[in-house]
Formats: sequence, C-alpha cells, structure tokens
Amino acid sequence: MTEPAPVMVNGFDGSRAGDLPPATQELIRRRDRALGPAYRLFYDRPVSFVRGSGVHLYDAEGNAYLDAYNNVPCVGHSHPHVTEAVARQLATLNTHTRYLTDGLVSYAERLLATHDLASPANAMFTCTGSEANDLALRIARHHTGGTGVIVTANAYHGVTAALAELSPSLGPNVPLGPHVRVVPAPTPGVNFTAAVAWAVSDLERHGVRLAGFLADSVFSSDGVFPDPAGFLAPIPEIVHAAGGLYIADEVQAGFARTGSHMWGYQRHGLAPDIVTMGKPMGNGLPVAGLVARQDVLDDFGRNARYFNTFGGNPVSVAAAAAVLDVLDADALPANAAATGAYLKDGVAGIAAGSAVLADVRGAGLYLGVDVVSPSTGEPSAEQASAIVNGMRERRVLISATGPRGHVLKIRPPLPFRPEHADQLLAALSDVLADVSSFRS
Amino acid sequence: MTEPAPVMVNGFDGSRAGDLPPATQELIRRRDRALGPAYRLFYDRPVSFVRGSGVHLYDAEGNAYLDAYNNVPCVGHSHPHVTEAVARQLATLNTHTRYLTDGLVSYAERLLATHDLASPANAMFTCTGSEANDLALRIARHHTGGTGVIVTANAYHGVTAALAELSPSLGPNVPLGPHVRVVPAPTPGVNFTAAVAWAVSDLERHGVRLAGFLADSVFSSDGVFPDPAGFLAPIPEIVHAAGGLYIADEVQAGFARTGSHMWGYQRHGLAPDIVTMGKPMGNGLPVAGLVARQDVLDDFGRNARYFNTFGGNPVSVAAAAAVLDVLDADALPANAAATGAYLKDGVAGIAAGSAVLADVRGAGLYLGVDVVSPSTGEPSAEQASAIVNGMRERRVLISATGPRGHVLKIRPPLPFRPEHADQLLAALSDVLADVSSFRS
Repeated sequence: MTEPAPVMVNGFDGSRAGDLPPATQELIRRRDRALGPAYRLFYDRPVSFVRGSGVHLYDAEGNAYLDAYNNVPCVGHSHPHVTEAVARQLATLNTHTRYLTDGLVSYAERLLATHDLASPANAMFTCTGSEANDLALRIARHHTGGTGVIVTANAYHGVTAALAELSPSLGPNVPLGPHVRVVPAPTPGVNFTAAVAWAVSDLERHGVRLAGFLADSVFSSDGVFPDPAGFLAPIPEIVHAAGGLYIADEVQAGFARTGSHMWGYQRHGLAPDIVTMGKPMGNGLPVAGLVARQDVLDDFGRNARYFNTFGGNPVSVAAAAAVLDVLDADALPANAAATGAYLKDGVAGIAAGSAVLADVRGAGLYLGVDVVSPSTGEPSAEQASAIVNGMRERRVLISATGPRGHVLKIRPPLPFRPEHADQLLAALSDVLADVSSFRS
Repeated sequence: MTEPAPVMVNGFDGSRAGDLPPATQELIRRRDRALGPAYRLFYDRPVSFVRGSGVHLYDAEGNAYLDAYNNVPCVGHSHPHVTEAVARQLATLNTHTRYLTDGLVSYAERLLATHDLASPANAMFTCTGSEANDLALRIARHHTGGTGVIVTANAYHGVTAALAELSPSLGPNVPLGPHVRVVPAPTPGVNFTAAVAWAVSDLERHGVRLAGFLADSVFSSDGVFPDPAGFLAPIPEIVHAAGGLYIADEVQAGFARTGSHMWGYQRHGLAPDIVTMGKPMGNGLPVAGLVARQDVLDDFGRNARYFNTFGGNPVSVAAAAAVLDVLDADALPANAAATGAYLKDGVAGIAAGSAVLADVRGAGLYLGVDVVSPSTGEPSAEQASAIVNGMRERRVLISATGPRGHVLKIRPPLPFRPEHADQLLAALSDVLADVSSFRS
C-alpha cells in the first residue's frame, strides 16, 4: 500500500467542485471520467482558456489573464513567427532523421554555437525534457560504467521510470533508487560543495561508482536558488575526480530565462559534460534534446543504438529555429534581464513592507519568493496558496514551488515588459492587503 | 568495453560516402560533426527529401518516391486537414493540461470509444511511444508490486533506460535487465502459449513477481508475425493468474494499420489491461499515450504524481483528432484491409516464382517477407539489403527487419491504393530479376 496522497502545490480540490458554474462542473466530471486521477487542475477555481497572445491568456468571456507562470511559450503565446514556420513545414514535409535534411543540421549547428562545453560537442534530439534527461543518464552510465547519481533534496528531473527514482519532489510514493544520493538544496548556510563531496564519498564507501551529478541550474523545484552566481563552479572538479559527469539540466533555466546568459550553467562559469534542455525550446511544440562532449558520447553513439521517431523531426525543428530567431530579433534575453531585475526590485520592495513575504530570489524572469506565517515567521504553504489564488482572482497567473510549497513561482513568457510587471506588483499588493487581514 | 558495433538494418555505411555527390558528402560531414555517431542514415545512397504529399516523397530534383515504409504519416504526408487543424490551434492557444480545455476531454472520449478493455478505462497522454511504454511499465509495477516483465526475443519497446533493458533488438551492448524474460517470437512451430507459461514459472522460481507481459501486437521487430489471428487470446489468463498485467504495445499495429481492426489486439479477441500507442497518432506531430483499466491506474494516478508538460497539449491533440477524422472520412481502415490483401497476394505471387523470397506474412498494410539465399535457402540479410537498395534506386521506399535483418518491411501510409501496390510489385519484380542474376 502507499502513503496518503501527497497534496499537489496549487492543486484543485475536486471535493469543492460544487462552488463552480454548472458547465464547468460538467466538463470536470467528463474529464475525471476520461482521464482519471493522475490529471490535476490548478487553482481553487480552475481556469479555462480559449486563446493566448503574447503574455496574455483569455477565457471564453474574453477576460485577459496576465501570464506570469508559463515558461514553455517563451517568446509569447501563439507567436506568429512560430506558427508560420510550423504551418509551412507541416504543409511541406515532416519525416524522421534517417533521411538527410538540411534543417536539422543547421539548427544543431546554431544550438551548439550557444554552448560552452569543455571539448567539441554533439547535439541529440528528443521530444521532452524527460527523454533528454533519461538519455543523458544512459550516456553517463554507459561512459562511466557507474550507476550512482547525485541530485538535490527536492529535485525534479522527469517522469520516466529511471528519472522518477531520482526525483525526490515526486513524493514518498515514488521511492528513490538505491544508487541515488541527495544533497541539500543550496540554501543560505549550506556548504553545497562540501555536501556534494560528502555524497561522492558516501557512494564510494558503498562501492557504487559515480555516473554523474545532475542539477537544474536554478534549482526551481527546490525553491529557486540561483545565487550567488558561481557557487556551482567547484562541482565539476569534484565530480570528475570521482569518475562522474556533470549534467546540467537546463529545462528550466535554458533559452535565456535568466537574462544574463543563454544557459544557467554559464552564470556559474562552469563547463558541463552534458546539457539537457526542453520546455521553451519550441515554444510549445514538443522538442527537446541534449548536447554532450563528443568523447563522452562517442562509444554510446556507436554501440547503443538510439533512434527517437519524432526526435528532430522537421516540424519541431522549424519551431525551435523560429524560437531562436525571435529571441534574437526581439532582444528577449536583454528584456529578461532588465524586466526581471525591475520585477525583483518591485517584489522586494513589497516584501520589505510585508510580514507575509520574506526572502526574494531570482535571475532574469525566474523569481522565487518565500511566504511565511506572519505570526510565527515559519514557511507557510497555506498563505502561499492564498496568494496564488488571490492573484488568479485578479487574473494574474503565478504558482508555488519548493519542498514545503511556500515559495511563489513567478516565471512569465520572456516578452514580459515593465508595464506587465507593474500590473503584477499592483495585484500582489492588493492580494497581500487581503491575505494579511484574514489569514494571519 | 563494448561489443563491436551492431550493424543497423538498412544503415548507410559512412566509409562509402565517396560515391555520393559532393554536396551530399558535405551535408553528411556537417551532420556527423553536429549530431555525432548515434545518428544513422538509411540506404547505401541516402535520400534527401524536400516535400511530401499523400504516399509520395519528393527529392530536390522533383523526383517522386513511392513511400511504402513510413507508418507515422498514416493519413498521408502533409495531409491538409491535419495541417489546418494544427495551424489553427497553434495560432489560437497552446498550453498544458492543468488548465481546463474541452479538446483534450473530447479526444480522450473518442479514443476510449475505440478500445475494448475488460473494465472502464482512462486515457493518459505522452509525447512518444517510448514515454507511453515507460509509463505503462511504471503503472504495472506500481499496481502489481512486481518487477518481472516478459517480452519476445527481438522485441523493441522504446529508448528510455527502463525500456532499453527490455528491448533485446537494441543488441548486445544494451544488456537486458535481471527481471526480464524473453520468449521466442511466435514463428511457425513455436508453442507461444507454452513459452509464456514457462517464462512465468521461471520468474516465480527466481522469486521475481510478475509485473506484466508486453508485446507489439504484430511483432514487427521480430519479423512481422500477425497470424493466425487469435493466437494471443490465451495469454491474458496466464499472465493474470501470476498477478501480472497484459500490456498491448500498439505503437506499430494501432490506428487501423491492420485494416480489419482499429487495434492489433482486437484481431486476437483479447482484452488488455493497458494499451500503449504512438507513431501514427498525430500523423507526425509528437503525440502518444495509453489507455488503462481504471482499477489498474487508480492508485498510481492518485499517489504517484504524473505530469507531462507537452503531453495532451492542444496542438498535438488537434493533430490527433484530425487523424481520427481522416481515417473515418477517407475510409482508410477499409482501404488498408483491401489494398493490404491485394498487395500481399501480389507479393506472394512474385515469391512463388522466386528463389529469393520465401514466406510472406501480413495484416492490412503491414507486410513482412522473408528473404533467403537462393543457393542455401537460409535467411539472407545481404539479399534483403540488395532488394531494399534496389527498390530505393527504383524510387520505392521499403526497409528490412527481424533479428537477422532478412525480412522485408512494407508498411506504407494508409492511403496506399492498388495502383501504388502495382507500382511496388513491378519494381520488386524488376529488382528480383537483377538480384537473382548477380547475387545468388
């Protein structure tokens, strides 16, 4: 038997469906019947959208919601350049990588040029970040001959069987594998370098050879810990000394999310052995992949056959190429840096005058904000949920994260401008006035 | 160290690139540099396509190739109904399943209505067949508490770490897991039911509890063994008696490929516990998934969080719904049955007069044809390769499969008509005249 069901952060509680409009209740009933219990909805009052554009989503009544949550549509919802590229390619040709096509090669060359690995690298394509991390793990284990993996305490790296057993954030009903070691998240006061060195020696003491260290470069599911830039720099040497690889999971941090750099690991001034990427890569078309040092990939590539039917298909690659076009043409990395700093300052200003908001962290347009009980100062998932739902009632979409569900997660599409930040800040002030009054 | 690289069936040998046009050689050089050794090309002389339409692919010179290989574009290359559905949805809204949308629910209801499970079922969505099989395995292991899996001798079920270790077709450099048992493919003379019962008892004797039996309903990588319809019917009872689940992998057989039925397991008159599907589901858009008995899924769904960022996204679902529309509107299942039978008869007629072609098998538009050495009668991968490449030179695309690479694999898009079959048969006769004269 299993533990009681873990509460999903910002999950809808189906037992409260009675408060919803009848048509919504009926759609939720059909949904539950067809999709079953694995499918969850966001918010106390779930939202239903019919249209998206830029940083906005619209409901059936035409109400605009400011999207400050979704990183997948990184160049904005329904971006016409992506739509046109996909429609044109789909009307022309869509096939697989065992026929020779120029588009895949050209895109791979563009992607590789954005990376800084320690030696020449190759790109491989999958459909999801889970597939990319699963493949990285296979490559690392093949290359090192080891099985041990080090991750952080509330890491999330994907949903395949091999990744679920090294994703502690999935909760107590998904046990960690015997060769997995967890280190604390890089919170203030944690000596992260020492923690990794300890995990390495613990694996050695158990006779388990290290395959790799795997980390999300912004530690999003741990609660968003990007700073200080550079704190990860000592890790590759420790990992290499034990025969393992440094795998940078850039599914969250990648594609200029952090503003200052295209990839989160570049903020830390380190050179990974494998880098995985996903979510924003195709602005919502399923496309993901990895880049890996040639010498690390070589034996696996030659001897362990790998073919991903949809991986690198011309339509997904057209979407991915269009994303790179728009990031560049619209100077979105610079906007992520500038608007991200503006937003972080604004939230910090609000937090300074609030007993509910504590530490504010972030890099570019990825912010984490600690929410605490004003009476005890302890982390409060309940208050965080009240804020997230209060924002939703004011038509601003955010969510929460972290092992205790008390960290606001603010992660908008990259065309988020200062005027959008102003709207978010006004809504947040308004919600806090409300929350503080009735929940402290 | 690893074994020598296994030869890929119908793989291009890079050492022979010197025979190709200079522009092709240059693109292959760039490709190798960017993508590395895991990426392989088909054919002695790789093909490069710039356009697809219906059952044809076109090269840069405008030459039409008859596609008798690709099952992903099941309703035909670049089908306008699919393109329009995708372009319209992409221009409108693309997001994830934690907001409420009608399209996903409606599609799930349509999909479930095509299935025959033993009890009410739910649908879950992924992006690839590998993700679907990996999820099925997680569900089966969670539900049964077992880890043992039974597959066929040259099975292929996907490329995640968990699936690679139960996909013997990946070759000796990808070892099988300790809880995996293989049974012979259902070739003539094999008592398949007895073989499965033996594997069940062998797992029991090793103290390994059974999670499930997993089989491609047409046994494509084993060499295509669909007949006699019904031979799989006794398997679920054996598997259930040992506490395991019957998982039907319909990535190859599904979506009316076999003509007579929407799903390969229905030809066998059995009720699976979980059914996985993929490749043709979105005509090339990455979309895949599974349906599972509610009671099997229930505990996993409630307690082991599962969320697939791109799984069930509105754009992929729009493609999948458009595929169901076209299958129905163009009566493609009936065409697969009729043209498939016509094609099989034609190939059998040619085989009867040939010393190189032996047994001809197939269901609908999925054919397997044994190729033998005319002097010894033994399976001949070399002759099969000569035929596949001879067909390619005559601009008809097929490939080969099976543990010895000697089975021609003929698996065209479903709008393949009798006139296309005639063209394939004429090309095959022509190639055989050639092959027989210079290779016997």
